Amino acid sequence: MKVEILSTGTELLRGRGIDTNAAWLARELEAAGLEVRHRQVVDDHLGRLVDALKLAAARSDIILMTGGLGPTEDDLTRAAAAEAFHRELAFRPELWHRIQERFRRAKVRMAAIHRRQAFIPRGARALPNPHGSAPGFALRQDGVFFAALPGPPREMRPMFLRYVLPRLPRRADTLDWEGRSFGVPEATVDEIVRPIVGRRAAYGLTVQGGQVTIWLRAEGPGRARTIADLSRRIRRALGESFYEGDLHEVVARRLIETRTTFAVAESCTGGLVAHRLTEVPGVSAVFLEGVVAYSNASKVRLLGVPEDLLRRHGAVSEEVARAMALGVARRSGAALGAAVTGIAGPGGGTPAKPVGLCYMAVGERVERKVFSGERSFVKERAAMHVLDMVRRALE
Amino acid sequence: MKVEILSTGTELLRGRGIDTNAAWLARELEAAGLEVRHRQVVDDHLGRLVDALKLAAARSDIILMTGGLGPTEDDLTRAAAAEAFHRELAFRPELWHRIQERFRRAKVRMAAIHRRQAFIPRGARALPNPHGSAPGFALRQDGVFFAALPGPPREMRPMFLRYVLPRLPRRADTLDWEGRSFGVPEATVDEIVRPIVGRRAAYGLTVQGGQVTIWLRAEGPGRARTIADLSRRIRRALGESFYEGDLHEVVARRLIETRTTFAVAESCTGGLVAHRLTEVPGVSAVFLEGVVAYSNASKVRLLGVPEDLLRRHGAVSEEVARAMALGVARRSGAALGAAVTGIAGPGGGTPAKPVGLCYMAVGERVERKVFSGERSFVKERAAMHVLDMVRRALE
Repeated sequence: MKVEILSTGTELLRGRGIDTNAAWLARELEAAGLEVRHRQVVDDHLGRLVDALKLAAARSDIILMTGGLGPTEDDLTRAAAAEAFHRELAFRPELWHRIQERFRRAKVRMAAIHRRQAFIPRGARALPNPHGSAPGFALRQDGVFFAALPGPPREMRPMFLRYVLPRLPRRADTLDWEGRSFGVPEATVDEIVRPIVGRRAAYGLTVQGGQVTIWLRAEGPGRARTIADLSRRIRRALGESFYEGDLHEVVARRLIETRTTFAVAESCTGGLVAHRLTEVPGVSAVFLEGVVAYSNASKVRLLGVPEDLLRRHGAVSEEVARAMALGVARRSGAALGAAVTGIAGPGGGTPAKPVGLCYMAVGERVERKVFSGERSFVKERAAMHVLDMVRRALE
Repeated sequence: MKVEILSTGTELLRGRGIDTNAAWLARELEAAGLEVRHRQVVDDHLGRLVDALKLAAARSDIILMTGGLGPTEDDLTRAAAAEAFHRELAFRPELWHRIQERFRRAKVRMAAIHRRQAFIPRGARALPNPHGSAPGFALRQDGVFFAALPGPPREMRPMFLRYVLPRLPRRADTLDWEGRSFGVPEATVDEIVRPIVGRRAAYGLTVQGGQVTIWLRAEGPGRARTIADLSRRIRRALGESFYEGDLHEVVARRLIETRTTFAVAESCTGGLVAHRLTEVPGVSAVFLEGVVAYSNASKVRLLGVPEDLLRRHGAVSEEVARAMALGVARRSGAALGAAVTGIAGPGGGTPAKPVGLCYMAVGERVERKVFSGERSFVKERAAMHVLDMVRRALE
């Protein structure tokens, strides 16, 4: 089963929005044993949308389209699908009724143009949208399954899970596995892992934020044994750098499992470490507080960093990083404290302390790194690094 | 000039990475008056990559490809370009020399497979990569310009700006403009703005996180006057909800311009507000501190919220939100304090205080909202809302 994802929206081509839908859909499809072969992004132009749909219908079995279901004149998915699949648009009174109801209940004035959303291609099945005004729709034609889903992720996701996924054919004879490694270069991970895998499974690597993801897919009746064996050997070969799952989730889970209360003091990462950890449900049981101590005064008042330490070593130093980590733990009563201090740039660097210099502390332990890149890259890398230190401390 | 962006990487199709490159490139190209017409995402499969390149060469004038330049066997851009443009891969000793040098200087052991990166299609121009081992390359054939850029954004961006963009033809007779509105439904913005624009400019709307972006493009000699006139009228029609730029940048800039020192106390947003503000260079002059007061004890100790207030009204209440905002300002000495307290979910909701209920405070002023969606959606919306309140407070 060849799957194709088609995202529409001039804003996507113009770089005004990042399409997280395609990535999310791909993961859900993969979990169901379905593989995405092609992806297209097309602007809000009827001719180009129709061309893209025809190309997809000629080479794929399942086409999932997101976006273009809104009420404005730029929302062309309904019209494009009608044309590509040679059907008229038909007005569906029950959809119109539901749209009007929705606005009535929310006590929001409805713009008249919402009536457009009640038209879908003749013979298509309407897909209810509990989180927005745009209904989706699905149809089958000449062996191709096509579904049109809304663009906003919180509308698209439940609609896909509830009304589309259950109708897709599944492959049950493959098994996927994913492991991760932090702090080891991609090419080195490849040198270590590729010989282990050999031809026993499909294999791939991804890098993001210093984290290398190793992906395996085994087929056939021996797949569970193959994955169990390969993953054990990969884990052993990569040692301490190895883990499974997203780094911030792994850290939050370990904190929760070991009932380790935690607090973090951040300077250059500006709250990013706390933000990542608090994405994980249930973390409130162990995460006591975060302090974004941007000014020296805050470091003294909120964390108890000695003024004299700041004067002698500067805010970006091993000594201050350690004092911040110990200070935030002591003051909050947390069992474990972590800290980051550094120069995110673009200003503030000196020859001795360049932009990108960061000290990360977990308890007494401090690590020093220079991350070369722009401000948000330095923040991202420093946050990942301190999270990985927490992970290692909890092993 | 029709531009096409081609992103490669099985991880992109498998949803293991989000392609920020295409969005970034599209914005840079637009600023140069070039319009992206098509985008494809292709997995690491030689045949499909060659097909995608041939399709792009047949319909576009400029093809920008990202990814697939790494050292592993899955990195197929070099081979695919060679095949699609009917050229052999040629070994370039100077590239090989530079790659070896890079590892020597960084004192990192080089995996032997990096030698692959010194092969590029015959006749192509090599594009230096100061931030990584993978050189890019560019070539022209049959009126098509093709450039292959590395996948990691911090390698791709400087390479594009320095070595590719200056060689692309520009259109100088269009002018783009962008404005934003927060808190007004998209369809309502459309009803207000569309009649103002009429046929005088190209027009589009994008929605993200409660923020509607209005985009205009005017052409020809009168373009500057047209944009000036339309943007003035749109601004007037949308009133207080209108601003230009990214919300967190607008807020940081206003704080800096008005020399308003600022501090923020966050509960359910978990540091996201501080993280967003600290993405902006120079904000350290006015942003004094952030406190992520997840536990009640932290709200009392770090912010001076009266225990009795927490007992009577609960942590998620108008009274506590106000006390947090006033407390963080008082303790830090900031001129303005803001706060968010709410229930991000998925647990912790009650009939009286459902998941998604958030109180946002700026100084004395408090606003109440119920954001319906999953945990990260509630965090995102609450953070945007409080940033918008700060923006309005600074008007």
